Amino acid sequence: MTALKSWADTAPLLIDTAMGRRKADMVVRNGRWVNVHSGEIIPGTDVAITAGRFAYVGPDAAHTIGPATRVIDAAGRYLVPGLCDGHMHVESGMVTVTEFARAVIPHGTTTMFADPHEIANVLGLPGVRLMHDEAMGLPVNAFIQMPSCVPSAPGLENPGAELGPAEVQEAMGWPNIIGLGEMMNFPGVIAGDPKMLAEIAATQNAGKTVGGHYASPDLGHAFHAYAAGGPADDHEGTRREDAIARVRQGMRAMLRLGSAWYDVAAQIKAVTEDGLDSRNFILCTDDSHSGTLVNEGHMNRVVRHAIAQGLKPVTAIQMASLNTAQHFGLERELGSIAPGRRADMILTSNLVALPIEMVIARGKVLAENGRLTADIPAFAYPASARNSVNMKRDLTADDFAIAAPKGANEVTARVIGVIENQAPTKALEKRLKVASGLVDAGLESGVCQIALVERHRATGGVVNAFVSGFGYNVDCAVASTVAHDSHHMIVVGTNRSDMAMAANILRKAGGGAVVVSGGRQLALVELPIAGLMSDERAEIVARKAEALVQAMKDCGCTLNNAYMQHSLLALVVIPELRISDVGLVDVRSFEKVELFV
Amino acid sequence: MTALKSWADTAPLLIDTAMGRRKADMVVRNGRWVNVHSGEIIPGTDVAITAGRFAYVGPDAAHTIGPATRVIDAAGRYLVPGLCDGHMHVESGMVTVTEFARAVIPHGTTTMFADPHEIANVLGLPGVRLMHDEAMGLPVNAFIQMPSCVPSAPGLENPGAELGPAEVQEAMGWPNIIGLGEMMNFPGVIAGDPKMLAEIAATQNAGKTVGGHYASPDLGHAFHAYAAGGPADDHEGTRREDAIARVRQGMRAMLRLGSAWYDVAAQIKAVTEDGLDSRNFILCTDDSHSGTLVNEGHMNRVVRHAIAQGLKPVTAIQMASLNTAQHFGLERELGSIAPGRRADMILTSNLVALPIEMVIARGKVLAENGRLTADIPAFAYPASARNSVNMKRDLTADDFAIAAPKGANEVTARVIGVIENQAPTKALEKRLKVASGLVDAGLESGVCQIALVERHRATGGVVNAFVSGFGYNVDCAVASTVAHDSHHMIVVGTNRSDMAMAANILRKAGGGAVVVSGGRQLALVELPIAGLMSDERAEIVARKAEALVQAMKDCGCTLNNAYMQHSLLALVVIPELRISDVGLVDVRSFEKVELFV
Repeated sequence: MTALKSWADTAPLLIDTAMGRRKADMVVRNGRWVNVHSGEIIPGTDVAITAGRFAYVGPDAAHTIGPATRVIDAAGRYLVPGLCDGHMHVESGMVTVTEFARAVIPHGTTTMFADPHEIANVLGLPGVRLMHDEAMGLPVNAFIQMPSCVPSAPGLENPGAELGPAEVQEAMGWPNIIGLGEMMNFPGVIAGDPKMLAEIAATQNAGKTVGGHYASPDLGHAFHAYAAGGPADDHEGTRREDAIARVRQGMRAMLRLGSAWYDVAAQIKAVTEDGLDSRNFILCTDDSHSGTLVNEGHMNRVVRHAIAQGLKPVTAIQMASLNTAQHFGLERELGSIAPGRRADMILTSNLVALPIEMVIARGKVLAENGRLTADIPAFAYPASARNSVNMKRDLTADDFAIAAPKGANEVTARVIGVIENQAPTKALEKRLKVASGLVDAGLESGVCQIALVERHRATGGVVNAFVSGFGYNVDCAVASTVAHDSHHMIVVGTNRSDMAMAANILRKAGGGAVVVSGGRQLALVELPIAGLMSDERAEIVARKAEALVQAMKDCGCTLNNAYMQHSLLALVVIPELRISDVGLVDVRSFEKVELFV
Repeated sequence: MTALKSWADTAPLLIDTAMGRRKADMVVRNGRWVNVHSGEIIPGTDVAITAGRFAYVGPDAAHTIGPATRVIDAAGRYLVPGLCDGHMHVESGMVTVTEFARAVIPHGTTTMFADPHEIANVLGLPGVRLMHDEAMGLPVNAFIQMPSCVPSAPGLENPGAELGPAEVQEAMGWPNIIGLGEMMNFPGVIAGDPKMLAEIAATQNAGKTVGGHYASPDLGHAFHAYAAGGPADDHEGTRREDAIARVRQGMRAMLRLGSAWYDVAAQIKAVTEDGLDSRNFILCTDDSHSGTLVNEGHMNRVVRHAIAQGLKPVTAIQMASLNTAQHFGLERELGSIAPGRRADMILTSNLVALPIEMVIARGKVLAENGRLTADIPAFAYPASARNSVNMKRDLTADDFAIAAPKGANEVTARVIGVIENQAPTKALEKRLKVASGLVDAGLESGVCQIALVERHRATGGVVNAFVSGFGYNVDCAVASTVAHDSHHMIVVGTNRSDMAMAANILRKAGGGAVVVSGGRQLALVELPIAGLMSDERAEIVARKAEALVQAMKDCGCTLNNAYMQHSLLALVVIPELRISDVGLVDVRSFEKVELFV
């Protein structure tokens, strides 16, 4: 892959092409130009591309066509800028950056702003560098946001590595770092935590964009203080008033539609009903399952959804192109079909249904009619990125026993209440039965066990607690080494032996996700890279993940996006109740709490 | 003047203020927040300011008020971001940067993007540095664009200094350089001139904004090639289609209302009638007379005018605040009333008439009810910036004699035809009488003489030609060392002795502008700094300039902005016919032409 040259270095060729003195590499004729600068749709437009960049966009590029020019007849179809995902985590697809790109290119995504927060929690700065380097080799644009909060909740969890201001400063000098990844430690910012502010400062001083993450409904002083701290965007809003508040404070509202996030519909009303200036709204996915990527789409799905909410198509497309590019200081580099920009473009015959009929990136056709046509070689992850599941020993059923207070026949326990289609959990309290000194919720209670198994330093630690909402109604266990954000291992189950078996299977596989029932392995997704990512093709991972979800269903789980919900139960930055390697955490107060009330 | 600290360095104080842990320096209560991010006007807004930056903007800042906090009651007035002038030349006001700021602050301008192109033509890079340093000491924001075209028209003029890619690269490292000043050599860009492209590349590689200047009605291949060359904005458009073309190509349309430019009304229809996305439109002044500044206003005049053309007030204000800031990569630094930004704000009771009732910059009240209240010390220009009028000797009437071809009774001469209120001139041809071997247009012809007197290297050169449109109807001469862009001396007159006298007066004064009639000096504006700027107060300069214009009127000149038209007659980059130290220049073909046809 030849690296794309800068506009400055390409300008002589672009000028010559526009003047007809040099012939274009590719010309797309007779398209409807979706002009995200002017907000217009301009029929009868020709586009000439030279050296991977747009050289001429106007009514007639005949003068740029020579014998070697590849000419594509758009036949009146729309020319849409390649779509940008304003904030996302590649690891959520359980595939490598390369596989993620292979999966989303046919959907029209040509630019990603990826925060490798997950691998950072397992492998630290070297893990970030691996994904940074992998991203740079792609034929599409994948910029890396430097993870800001590793650990996400200092003192409340112990990930595999820690990052701080020194690492942020170092990373800001890397060629493909676009800014700071979501500043999740909003209580830290509000409290003036010098470490968090130093990371923000290092990013601002490098002239880069500080990503935000304010996961609280409180729009009072705390929110204002967070905005004053420097984060420039936020994708954690869920309500119309969240979007309005962010935009008013000079932040960009990132509206996400991920596999398990549905935050566009409510917030977009700030534009469609309240009439706010749409330039400060950006669409993103945040987290996408490989299954979503393979079966439903990526940013095309988000744009289509936004249009279905009443946005003008060109406005929705701006939110996934120019607006995003402007936010990251890249508006002269990508995000529109205009001279000098990277020649990233989609052809589609319908601006509402948005079928992605051709995808061009840096002037090369990469996909047609939903199929990847380009050959994109895999990235070789080193041994250091594998074998990351460090457990002291295999576990047994006893490791998951929860002793009741002496003499109790019943206990009142804190229970993590999963809410369908929402990231926050409820901090529930439930009366649970005791049998032989151990708490035994019983299948009929709707409450099952959850365990956090330490897997970074082989401490042998297992934290046990309770969770409700999954609906498991047979003996079973589900385990995963994807366990945001510190990515220990989460085991949820109704049977302690199955829980041990599930954990041990993942230990052996070097990470992944597994469903066990009655001593039988029902499904397994191997994730040998950092215990987070497969080295297989997205289609295969999607199929395995689908089998995993089916196995969860077979065990009684009816929850939408059940596996993602599972993997978020240790996310001790989103309220209300979570589990970590240090214990049960109330994320409203950021305090460890006891299991029994 | 204490330098403003960065947001990064101020963040701890801002956060503490927003939380109420630290009290604000200033709180403005109960305003109507003109929110340029959301496009809303939000009543009942309080603004807290700490260390020169906005710390809190919301419904109630009571918690930020302490005993030392200055509290200002906005009493329901509008809170408008300090206005930004997206492109301008300080020298056009014939005052120093400091004096310019003193003049425009009461009008609500708190940010200027100034291209010191004029002083660069006289003093070169040291001249740019002087204005750069002066600008940095101001209590408002004055960013400097590095002049790109010195000379403006290589080979067609010889200014006092030359700048090239090496100087551009050097200047990009200076702290207050925001980008490249208008790239006027559009034929060079289109032709792929390596020098012009190297200047653009140096700017792009520094991550800064390349200013454009495409002064041609041709929107065909040449325009597309110019856009492909890298300029990011253009303020030379005059027609609706000019603005549309620029925005479509991913450039920002800068619409100017200067003392002699009236380019907003036609172009703004692209927004008000064609419905183009307004975010890519920016208002600017380009050139303002000191008289305009003192008597009419500055950016407030432009915003008011834009509103009168049918723009929503908040949209017009965006074009003079957020849009401008975004264009220069400063949207997180200024251009809105939002946390972290420089606390630049206007209070006004009417968003249409836009009376500027209070001006706050960096958290200090600088002006009230049109009067500057802050003490802004003058900048001391060194001797090197003075005594820049280097003529070989005093001139005589004979230096202005234009000999006819031998034996001719009449000649057909090329005549520069001045057009009222427009920058372009007409290339006219006129039959002129001959007397005693010399061309003698005669007062009744409407044609008078123009001379370009070399003043940088004391070559003794005088180029004589003809001009029409001024209307002088008595014996007189008007001379000026402000003579865009190479700033030799332009003398226009009906009488050769008066022309010599005028030139000699300016030689003695070290530069300026003068009107002489029948051997009497009618008016003089001394401009001792580079022959371009006064060291007096704007009010005094305006009064002297007014007297100058009155003197021109007394000599029969009825032209609007007559002096500015005079000073543009050597501007060999704007069509059609101009004069320079090398001769008469046809700016349609960029060729020197003969005086007689």
